[in-house]
Amino acid sequence: MTLSVTQNLNTTGKRIASIQQNALSLLVEWSDETVSEFHHIWLRDNCPTAFHIDTEEREFDLLSVSEDIHPLSVEVSDDFLHIEWSEGGHRSCFTQSWLIEHSYSGLINERHVSAYESWDSAFVNTIYHAQYEAVMDDDKALYQWMVELDKSGLTLIDGMPDSTESTVLLASRIDYLRQTNFGTTFNVVSVESPINLAYTSIDLPLHTDLTNQETPPGYQFLHCLANDCEGGESVFVDALKVAEELRDECPDYFKLLSEQVIPFRFHDESHDIREHHSVINVDQFGNIIEIKFNAHLASIFDLPACVMYEYYLAYRSLMKRLRDERFKIELKLSAGQMVVFDNRRVLHGRNKFEDSSGRRHLHGCYVDRSEFKSRLRVLAKKYA
Amino acid sequence: MTLSVTQNLNTTGKRIASIQQNALSLLVEWSDETVSEFHHIWLRDNCPTAFHIDTEEREFDLLSVSEDIHPLSVEVSDDFLHIEWSEGGHRSCFTQSWLIEHSYSGLINERHVSAYESWDSAFVNTIYHAQYEAVMDDDKALYQWMVELDKSGLTLIDGMPDSTESTVLLASRIDYLRQTNFGTTFNVVSVESPINLAYTSIDLPLHTDLTNQETPPGYQFLHCLANDCEGGESVFVDALKVAEELRDECPDYFKLLSEQVIPFRFHDESHDIREHHSVINVDQFGNIIEIKFNAHLASIFDLPACVMYEYYLAYRSLMKRLRDERFKIELKLSAGQMVVFDNRRVLHGRNKFEDSSGRRHLHGCYVDRSEFKSRLRVLAKKYA
Repeated sequence: MTLSVTQNLNTTGKRIASIQQNALSLLVEWSDETVSEFHHIWLRDNCPTAFHIDTEEREFDLLSVSEDIHPLSVEVSDDFLHIEWSEGGHRSCFTQSWLIEHSYSGLINERHVSAYESWDSAFVNTIYHAQYEAVMDDDKALYQWMVELDKSGLTLIDGMPDSTESTVLLASRIDYLRQTNFGTTFNVVSVESPINLAYTSIDLPLHTDLTNQETPPGYQFLHCLANDCEGGESVFVDALKVAEELRDECPDYFKLLSEQVIPFRFHDESHDIREHHSVINVDQFGNIIEIKFNAHLASIFDLPACVMYEYYLAYRSLMKRLRDERFKIELKLSAGQMVVFDNRRVLHGRNKFEDSSGRRHLHGCYVDRSEFKSRLRVLAKKYA
Repeated sequence: MTLSVTQNLNTTGKRIASIQQNALSLLVEWSDETVSEFHHIWLRDNCPTAFHIDTEEREFDLLSVSEDIHPLSVEVSDDFLHIEWSEGGHRSCFTQSWLIEHSYSGLINERHVSAYESWDSAFVNTIYHAQYEAVMDDDKALYQWMVELDKSGLTLIDGMPDSTESTVLLASRIDYLRQTNFGTTFNVVSVESPINLAYTSIDLPLHTDLTNQETPPGYQFLHCLANDCEGGESVFVDALKVAEELRDECPDYFKLLSEQVIPFRFHDESHDIREHHSVINVDQFGNIIEIKFNAHLASIFDLPACVMYEYYLAYRSLMKRLRDERFKIELKLSAGQMVVFDNRRVLHGRNKFEDSSGRRHLHGCYVDRSEFKSRLRVLAKKYA
């Protein structure tokens, strides 16, 4: 069945030109000659009446209809597509703009491309600086800062008050903090019986935090309260940039690092937290979404013997690139500055410092990705 | 090079019988005629001296040696394997028991089989009951309860004090609580302007919580403070059992549900939390490790058009099984009882209740899987 229609164009200019009803779906041809397939069962499942009026949660019970449900009639009028269903005497009414927005024909991957901008050492000159007072007081400044953080994965906040409380206040502008076995906040200072290498004064090689957790913390806040020792510069690398290069130049290594899992572990008296992860994490749409790299927490590799040697070659290849000066930025944080970065994207480390030459104190916390992205969406409705 | 050795058996009875050195690895033949391959680079990377003496974190820099590193000599004496390396004048000494424990030849999957015991409706007669006082006061009782919870994914705690505080105290015996956009604790009561269906008095179909989060909460604690309405029975299904059956009977559907991702979403005034997930989650070792099923939070499916209809068939097939009486248990919680279950395995729901017939109040919170497994490991060292 083909239904030809002629009508006024809506604001986007794209309208239904014709509809062909097949056994399982409607084929909608648009005025720009593109075609969208909408399956009958999908249309019934997403009828506007299927959602709760207050919560907008789906209320329709999919099993209340059969898988053979199909339109008895299809009608286009003005901005709407009307369907009379073969079951339950039900009618649905969709706006054409809703159908355009939710069309699932074409390349799904194109709709799920990450918006990040990967960077190398030149990024040190273009790091986004936000002001503490502005981010605290003004939602638009908060939004602008979060957009930059989302894109590059690393920003600086200047003008932080000289208190550990301000770290939490700033981070809480996004949402609640992510607790870990180290607490909801932590202090990076050199101590006598360190439970991990961060709490010494030695070189801290580039890593992402807590790769031993099922979901390592998302955004990391490191507020510098003092840093007048010799040394102690913070070092960062955008591991997404490095992974992109590896994918281009050594696709076999990239594949191994994204498909094989290695064990990570942290343990002390009260915890023994272990997880297997791939070092490179690619989502279902082909985007590199996460790097879990922490040589210190990496436990004893238990890969199948047949891939062990090749895996070491891939892992070493990634390690070498991560240390390449082409990718590295170095920042000597000063008191009153806070660096905020995506812990699951940007590796961080520090140069060793001379304990006796002064004081170095960073105060840190985390906010997770779900909360960050949620806040960004809510702010975007007003400020984008 | 083959090195034949004769020596006393250690406690396990298994000892090195011979060693053959190849280009990339040592092939160790054990006294029980099994063979383990240990790659040179793996052995060097895991030399006992590679780990920090306090933190046990890996300190050895893998890039300080080349990928061609190999033994100059290999020697077995008593319980040890000694290696003199071709680089850095370094020597390593491994115990044979450590080599046995970390052997990565053979089937990796056998070492990563989940210990869970899936259940159907008969489970209602064998649910493990723990006592509040015992779990609070005695680490061994805590351990025994956690072992049962780990295996079956659902247990009951009896003798809860009549306070919301006790929910938190009990959960905190494992570790800190998982915060969500609903707070660190929540009350399930019928309210006038519900932000989700849980806060009404209507039927709550079987689901797992917060599938819209990147990592949905792990273990859920639901403490019953009052439940004297008509109706309001809690309903549970072990989705692992259902997924196992689906894997056996409809492998194509299982594959679709474990490989394709669908969108989930919760939003209110302050949040808009969205994530794509597969409904069935299988780990790298082939274990079913998680079900994310929540028809209310499921957003508008945006699968590629070529799999959409088939996916609906698979999804409906899973839904039908999840409603099958063969799998369901029903519990009318009474005041002073708490049900604790794995929110990422066991679906929960409730029958509708008659608001005017009495009071129904559940107080809830979550503890995540990483923390649960960590606590279980630490307790097992003492009580297993």
